[in-house]
Amino acid sequence: MDYENLTLHTDKYQINMMYAHWKNNSHNRRAIFDAYIRKNPFRNGYTVFAGLERIVHYINSLHFTKEDIDYLKQQEENYEEAFLDELRAFSFTGNIYAMREGEIVFPNEPLIRVEARIFEAQLIETAILNFMNYQSLIATKASRIKQVANDDTLVEFGSRRAQEADAAVWGARSAYIAGFHATSNMRAGKLFNIPSKGTHAHSWIQDHDTEEEAFMNFATALPDQSILLVDTYDTLKSGIPNAIKTGKMLESQGKKLKAIRLDSGDLARLSIEGRQMLDEADMDYVEIMASNDLDEEVIMHLKLQGAKITSWGVGTKLITGARKPSLGGVYKLVAREDAEGMIPVIKLSDDIAKVTTPGPKKVYRIINRKTNKSEGDYVALDSETVDDKPLKMFDPLFPQKFKYVNDYEAHDLLQPIFVNGEQVYPLPSLEEIHCYHKEQLSYIWEETLRLLNPQTYYVDLSYDLWKMKQDMIEKHSME
Amino acid sequence: MDYENLTLHTDKYQINMMYAHWKNNSHNRRAIFDAYIRKNPFRNGYTVFAGLERIVHYINSLHFTKEDIDYLKQQEENYEEAFLDELRAFSFTGNIYAMREGEIVFPNEPLIRVEARIFEAQLIETAILNFMNYQSLIATKASRIKQVANDDTLVEFGSRRAQEADAAVWGARSAYIAGFHATSNMRAGKLFNIPSKGTHAHSWIQDHDTEEEAFMNFATALPDQSILLVDTYDTLKSGIPNAIKTGKMLESQGKKLKAIRLDSGDLARLSIEGRQMLDEADMDYVEIMASNDLDEEVIMHLKLQGAKITSWGVGTKLITGARKPSLGGVYKLVAREDAEGMIPVIKLSDDIAKVTTPGPKKVYRIINRKTNKSEGDYVALDSETVDDKPLKMFDPLFPQKFKYVNDYEAHDLLQPIFVNGEQVYPLPSLEEIHCYHKEQLSYIWEETLRLLNPQTYYVDLSYDLWKMKQDMIEKHSME
Repeated sequence: MDYENLTLHTDKYQINMMYAHWKNNSHNRRAIFDAYIRKNPFRNGYTVFAGLERIVHYINSLHFTKEDIDYLKQQEENYEEAFLDELRAFSFTGNIYAMREGEIVFPNEPLIRVEARIFEAQLIETAILNFMNYQSLIATKASRIKQVANDDTLVEFGSRRAQEADAAVWGARSAYIAGFHATSNMRAGKLFNIPSKGTHAHSWIQDHDTEEEAFMNFATALPDQSILLVDTYDTLKSGIPNAIKTGKMLESQGKKLKAIRLDSGDLARLSIEGRQMLDEADMDYVEIMASNDLDEEVIMHLKLQGAKITSWGVGTKLITGARKPSLGGVYKLVAREDAEGMIPVIKLSDDIAKVTTPGPKKVYRIINRKTNKSEGDYVALDSETVDDKPLKMFDPLFPQKFKYVNDYEAHDLLQPIFVNGEQVYPLPSLEEIHCYHKEQLSYIWEETLRLLNPQTYYVDLSYDLWKMKQDMIEKHSME
Repeated sequence: MDYENLTLHTDKYQINMMYAHWKNNSHNRRAIFDAYIRKNPFRNGYTVFAGLERIVHYINSLHFTKEDIDYLKQQEENYEEAFLDELRAFSFTGNIYAMREGEIVFPNEPLIRVEARIFEAQLIETAILNFMNYQSLIATKASRIKQVANDDTLVEFGSRRAQEADAAVWGARSAYIAGFHATSNMRAGKLFNIPSKGTHAHSWIQDHDTEEEAFMNFATALPDQSILLVDTYDTLKSGIPNAIKTGKMLESQGKKLKAIRLDSGDLARLSIEGRQMLDEADMDYVEIMASNDLDEEVIMHLKLQGAKITSWGVGTKLITGARKPSLGGVYKLVAREDAEGMIPVIKLSDDIAKVTTPGPKKVYRIINRKTNKSEGDYVALDSETVDDKPLKMFDPLFPQKFKYVNDYEAHDLLQPIFVNGEQVYPLPSLEEIHCYHKEQLSYIWEETLRLLNPQTYYVDLSYDLWKMKQDMIEKHSME
């Protein structure tokens, strides 16, 4: 099985539409699609964009193999040989603009813009959304956890509950982008150069005659990085006393026990009593790590109760985005080519929030130079320039709500990634992405970052864009 | 990037434990682990086992590449060269027993039993749980949907919201096992020979001047399998009338429109009125398909309201196992080798449901020959045989609740998959798995299959196994 070839990682209707366009001789017409979200996940105030590196690799390696073509042929006898020849010659020749990974993004602004022959733009929709949706979901979940954990150590522990192997590694990477420090998944560590961390399991203890022997053997083997799991029998009566003995043995060799790990029971009480026992044994350097179905809410409550935990292993609820395991990113046509050139396209809906914003667009983050905080995002026509003149920002649904911004910097957020099929964007290192994310967070007001009931961040339209959209809505409504 | 090599798809603590065992010279000792679940997902009465094919491929291709070794070396300077040599020579040499894919399984019975050197058994835990947990979760979700949809057509539509690419394809396969008919994902279709199905998107309509022209062009290109999406503008005033015109055009060519698809609005009302419009146009052969955030609950309510939908495209909520996006399968040590040979191991817990059942075990499904229904599962010591004598079945938590079964067949559920590292189980085709699943469902009483508040299915222990467990609990409690 060729798992690496993702060209057929698409919905059948994309291939059907490609075929119908080809039959109709419209397959070379250009089209512009925006990928965007309509809502932040987890009732969060923002979303952390991720998935671009995966998308870049995917686009670069797009090609239909002989096996792919044979499969399509056998699947659908309608497909004509000349169409299959088009597929044999397929490569991506269009332009892609996208947010940087780690960017703080918001609903109803383009996160990715694809400009290509409709034949190409259609094929790649499924994979682009699949990668963007999952990775941004997990980066956002991780960002919420990071906000509660502050400077504590956060380790991604979710592999055995992740939704299959890709989710384990790309989820671990997304968590790292948003501020996690390490992952337990070795493949993620190797693929993306994420620090990896591990302790031992209950089975290590059970596979020895006594807990003490198990600890001693483990610490002897890995004296520099022993984290001992203390809850197999009785945390306070057996686990921690045995860990202290083991720590003393290490001290006698000039080494130091790194941490103990709690994985069950009342983590608040056990960590408080455990801290005291360790301190009384003059082992204040030994950290307390906790795991067991943690998320931002559990961590917050444990901290509220004074838990003495400074390292958190977060698994299931992070890696699956529990409670909201999908991000509903969509990919909508915003312009198409006809005889006169590119024309903007709108999709109406009874639900005003679902009406698309037509045309190719840019997204500017308007940073107030005095506060160094963002005044909101300003979505403009691709042809507009936003310079230093006073900027009128207004709510596109309630244009009477407006403000003028004077002293600002406009950060142009969409980066050119592919131009005429060529990758023009050098992929940053994961470390750079991690730092970029942290920096971008600093531009956002606290009230938007709040975990519960965050303030809505404004994504405004430029007057010209807003006017074009209104005119198109009116025109369509009169038809 | 080498995405196919999954040997490092493991947690760092497994490698740490392997190292510590090696240092301790205990790495060649044998161990037995059971993988099992403690609860059915979605409050369902049963779980559909899946993931075995993936596990078999994984076990067969296990090996540490030079790059893997280099990575481990760089990660952990403790790892000695002789240990890395052990890894270089690594392959799986143990035994694996497992349920067949598509099997109906229950909490607290072994689904997979691994007997191997602790060095091997530890490495593979993470991947085995990752594959089993996700695929069984989705097969179970799909089974719930299948129960509501009965003989309607079910198409898996979740790729763009799946948790990355692996989930899309293995999830599509899991859905097919549990009774789905097709997937939209072409890669899943190709990898697993699942029928693929596709319609077209709103963008197809928007990329034409009129809806009618769009429909005609699509139907002309794919006359045998046109499914027209009718909700882009106005379903009843524009979409369905245009679909009927298109259907008439196809009729004039001796072809038939296959279906219309509804993707928004009130699916019950629109399908009822749409059915009437199609029937009045003498097109009772045109099916109505629906999509849009469907799951078993929504489908049930639509059917209750008389919706005329016979084909369902189910995406997000199936492919992510929405509401319960993880299955909590665990992998527990049940026996270990010491100087005297293999000895059973128990893990106690304050929570009685979390106490493990020691020793290597078999699982029998006790089919009453008169009713052809299962009387429950009977977990026995590997050394016991269950033959035709009257069988006493009792609740292991309340042994005073018992019954005798006389006329029964005992189906031995755990199949040998690997013996001494050699695959001895020929993988069945997906079609065979799909049929096997259907047949196994027929042995389960309706009250256990019910979607809401199902009757608990009994997983009993043999007297000998129960007695051994009780004795071990008592012995440990007295220590």
